[in-house]
Amino acid sequence: MANSKYEYVKSFERCQPDILLPNTWVVIRIDGRGFHKLTAKYGFEKPNDRRALDLMNAAAVAVFKELPDLVLGYGISDEYSFIFHKDCNLFERRAAKLITTIATTFTSHYIYLWPTYFPEKPLSPPMPSFDGRAVMYPSVQNLRDYMSWRQVDCHINNLYNTTFWTLIQKGGMDATAAEQRLSGTVSADKNEILFKEFGINYNNEDELYKKGSVVFRDYELVDPPALAAPVGSAALETDTSETRAQEQPLSKTAAEKERKKRAKARIAVEHVDVIRDEFWLRRPWILSGKAGKLNE
Amino acid sequence: MANSKYEYVKSFERCQPDILLPNTWVVIRIDGRGFHKLTAKYGFEKPNDRRALDLMNAAAVAVFKELPDLVLGYGISDEYSFIFHKDCNLFERRAAKLITTIATTFTSHYIYLWPTYFPEKPLSPPMPSFDGRAVMYPSVQNLRDYMSWRQVDCHINNLYNTTFWTLIQKGGMDATAAEQRLSGTVSADKNEILFKEFGINYNNEDELYKKGSVVFRDYELVDPPALAAPVGSAALETDTSETRAQEQPLSKTAAEKERKKRAKARIAVEHVDVIRDEFWLRRPWILSGKAGKLNE
Amino acid sequence: MANSKYEYVKSFERCQPDILLPNTWVVIRIDGRGFHKLTAKYGFEKPNDRRALDLMNAAAVAVFKELPDLVLGYGISDEYSFIFHKDCNLFERRAAKLITTIATTFTSHYIYLWPTYFPEKPLSPPMPSFDGRAVMYPSVQNLRDYMSWRQVDCHINNLYNTTFWTLIQKGGMDATAAEQRLSGTVSADKNEILFKEFGINYNNEDELYKKGSVVFRDYELVDPPALAAPVGSAALETDTSETRAQEQPLSKTAAEKERKKRAKARIAVEHVDVIRDEFWLRRPWILSGKAGKLNE
Amino acid sequence: MANSKYEYVKSFERCQPDILLPNTWVVIRIDGRGFHKLTAKYGFEKPNDRRALDLMNAAAVAVFKELPDLVLGYGISDEYSFIFHKDCNLFERRAAKLITTIATTFTSHYIYLWPTYFPEKPLSPPMPSFDGRAVMYPSVQNLRDYMSWRQVDCHINNLYNTTFWTLIQKGGMDATAAEQRLSGTVSADKNEILFKEFGINYNNEDELYKKGSVVFRDYELVDPPALAAPVGSAALETDTSETRAQEQPLSKTAAEKERKKRAKARIAVEHVDVIRDEFWLRRPWILSGKAGKLNE
Repeated sequence: MANSKYEYVKSFERCQPDILLPNTWVVIRIDGRGFHKLTAKYGFEKPNDRRALDLMNAAAVAVFKELPDLVLGYGISDEYSFIFHKDCNLFERRAAKLITTIATTFTSHYIYLWPTYFPEKPLSPPMPSFDGRAVMYPSVQNLRDYMSWRQVDCHINNLYNTTFWTLIQKGGMDATAAEQRLSGTVSADKNEILFKEFGINYNNEDELYKKGSVVFRDYELVDPPALAAPVGSAALETDTSETRAQEQPLSKTAAEKERKKRAKARIAVEHVDVIRDEFWLRRPWILSGKAGKLNE
Repeated sequence: MANSKYEYVKSFERCQPDILLPNTWVVIRIDGRGFHKLTAKYGFEKPNDRRALDLMNAAAVAVFKELPDLVLGYGISDEYSFIFHKDCNLFERRAAKLITTIATTFTSHYIYLWPTYFPEKPLSPPMPSFDGRAVMYPSVQNLRDYMSWRQVDCHINNLYNTTFWTLIQKGGMDATAAEQRLSGTVSADKNEILFKEFGINYNNEDELYKKGSVVFRDYELVDPPALAAPVGSAALETDTSETRAQEQPLSKTAAEKERKKRAKARIAVEHVDVIRDEFWLRRPWILSGKAGKLNE
Repeated sequence: MANSKYEYVKSFERCQPDILLPNTWVVIRIDGRGFHKLTAKYGFEKPNDRRALDLMNAAAVAVFKELPDLVLGYGISDEYSFIFHKDCNLFERRAAKLITTIATTFTSHYIYLWPTYFPEKPLSPPMPSFDGRAVMYPSVQNLRDYMSWRQVDCHINNLYNTTFWTLIQKGGMDATAAEQRLSGTVSADKNEILFKEFGINYNNEDELYKKGSVVFRDYELVDPPALAAPVGSAALETDTSETRAQEQPLSKTAAEKERKKRAKARIAVEHVDVIRDEFWLRRPWILSGKAGKLNE
Repeated sequence: MANSKYEYVKSFERCQPDILLPNTWVVIRIDGRGFHKLTAKYGFEKPNDRRALDLMNAAAVAVFKELPDLVLGYGISDEYSFIFHKDCNLFERRAAKLITTIATTFTSHYIYLWPTYFPEKPLSPPMPSFDGRAVMYPSVQNLRDYMSWRQVDCHINNLYNTTFWTLIQKGGMDATAAEQRLSGTVSADKNEILFKEFGINYNNEDELYKKGSVVFRDYELVDPPALAAPVGSAALETDTSETRAQEQPLSKTAAEKERKKRAKARIAVEHVDVIRDEFWLRRPWILSGKAGKLNE
């Protein structure tokens, strides 16, 4: 029984374009599907459910452990971004494979870890799931702007949600009234509502809620002196010091060696500013893709 | 704090081409990642582990329940194909969204159901995950050839694996010897080894192993008379009866109505031949995309 | 001097997705770039310049002579569509190669033939050029709808332009007045303006202007009896009679033989209806891709 | 007569992915189709036909005049590369439109100018045509490596062809003998054959043949001091000095202003080294995309 009569159908697979452009930063972003319903079903706390965010972060850390090629992650609410270095050649940079691997590995751990974070709320169908996409960014500046975009979004959403739910939970408003009250307000207005009407200083809110969660491999921080460098300085531009050799993909052996080094580092989850330079200057290994000095 | 300064990065998302061609059958195929290691870790039985396949099928059925747009599925070993009708417009046919939704919903149920099928073998990291891809097929014949390709593959692999493991488990060979023994053999040779040396009639093996698992929504089978029609007949070519109206996407209301009808049907998992016409002639709803008559 | 140090850049070429899906009809449509300026510069007659259209058609015929794989063409104004059969495998169906070959071969002949059609108006820079795109259509019905879409567009535009320019050229209006006069009118209104005010029966206008130009290889027309078949009949659906063998690409030898046959046929340019079935029923070789009987 | 019934076919156009990634250098490379036959038909001189190369360059210069967005070009033999700056947003970076515009504008001028360069050899069908492709390069280094790759190719091919045709034209060999003679030789061997056997110093060959043709907008060269900077220095990395503002697309007004400035500059065609830094350091406007000081 020959297989060849039908095997021509395999040739149709070539037509979904799939190879991500070399030498670009790859961002895989996943989003919870229908999490609005999910938060209602399992009674997540508003505006932020600590355990739900801890579960997201735990799943992200597990993804980092299984995929040493990842250099950076960022999570807010029910979304998580996973970033591969521009030199990464995992799965020959096939988009579908990268997206589904990240999305299913994350999902797998999310379901597996659920009982740890919600022991009294067992899962039942329909089950949590996530969709995902891949985006390429050619320059370090593009990548940093992506991270800034998400962190600014986190801030804007959290300030809104915090005020909205305070108006409801402490102010006794219903959702419609709270929405109307906030319509047309700017950040300063919301800060004022929180402070004057409810005695809440937004600055004292949990950094997890205000900044989101930044995931990276943890090495010894680089000395502050570098911080003296002006914004946008050469120190931040890995592109600057590049020789052609570095533009070319690493040899397989060298790439494997770097992956092993990365696999050894502890995975950190911090709630820090990624918009200013400091985060990047003190953690040069993120942009360089070269392992730093392990913390003792 | 304006968001716009960074938001330009969103425009980079348009560059991953993603819309699947309208009027084509969409196959999403997922494959277990590194399942070779997984089967060793959890001691799956060889050549087929009944519980592992039942788990795959249970997860597939759950996916069908959550996604009424699916019309057909096919599973063998650690791979599963999910098929959307050529008229389906779910997620505006965005490939990344379709692939990740299928892959993570499947994964989610796989992890959730694991303890039901392997109560004595709790999961531990690294966790099972799946990669996925989307393929488009323009004609019914292409789609049927895809299904035939997978089912022929199932047969070839299962006959090989059955013989290979019989040589080891009952014949006392080691893997290398078994491999050498089978090198260059055709199907008839393997059938003969099984029968003459071990008294095993391959035809009596479990249909699940020989045919794989076909998943579909279960309506009343259509009468045999249609079976009189010759192979490749018009009855099988939904393309034939199409008027232009049907080439155009259904209205949203009509599409929603069809989805609800589909959601009501029981999900069947059968181990049947999908290469010959009978399967398709008796279940015309699969190719037409129109719900059949519910079984009572 | 080794070449390899730089050659890695070649790998970036894989990332422009390019293979058109097999078993789909491929339409390459080219459009004149900035032809509004061009018609002014060379004083094209309004609403239609006979010589300009003849030049477009002559260039299209030349393209058909150089590319035997083409089965159908359709031209209106400064646009031309060229259609490859769904089984065509020219250039392995690489989109960029197909588009640029069609577009530059057309351009080449357009410039070369210009002096024949406009002997008293020599070309000067900036030169005429064309942009192009490729679109895939999975079914015969999609393809016919594409042709109908273009021919309906031709009719609508020509009726408008004929009335608009009659109001100006014979009615003494300026462009603004003519535009206002036509604002909100339907086809019947325009026909009436032409007939009642200017004694022009639109039906008597040149078929070239009303129907556009259909290009195909000319074989003996098939007998009228077939015309008795109802609209949308099986006779029109080549998909119907397909066996799997035909779904698979032709062998290289067979494909070459068909190309040679096609290369022998005269190229016809006719101004006929392509919306109704008759055109297709009498010229079955267009949809079948099999050469007909040569005219004597 | 409503148009809408057929217009759905337009939606199929979205499925050819087409937007080139922002912030990447875009190379459009065109190649003569079947120029082997063409050179025979019109009796081009071997190894290089001066008039044929001058015609290619004249067509390229005309393309630069019609497309002010182009910043660099490079031609060898029957191929030409046209480069758009990474910030260029022409045609919203749609690949098919960029490729066909470049390819047909080039073809148009090639045919138009042919009689100027080959007055005694009038064109006749089949006509010259060109295929084309688009490639994206994320970094300046990638772009320079692309240019180096082509120029190294030019050198290797020209040294081979010069020696091959000298063996035939002056050494009396036939093609087979010449090919065998050159089989396995390195550059030094070919140089020696030319010098020792035919008294030809390859270094004295025409720069046009040895270096190919580099096309750019001609401004006042920047002072030599910059040349003191080490290879790979910051001066060469436009990426270095970038602020985020520059990562974002220019405003339409600003972009239009830059285009007008570029349109004023003379188009230079030079046969110079583009592998070393000097070319780039003395013409900073190529990588910066900002017009230089016009020559007086």
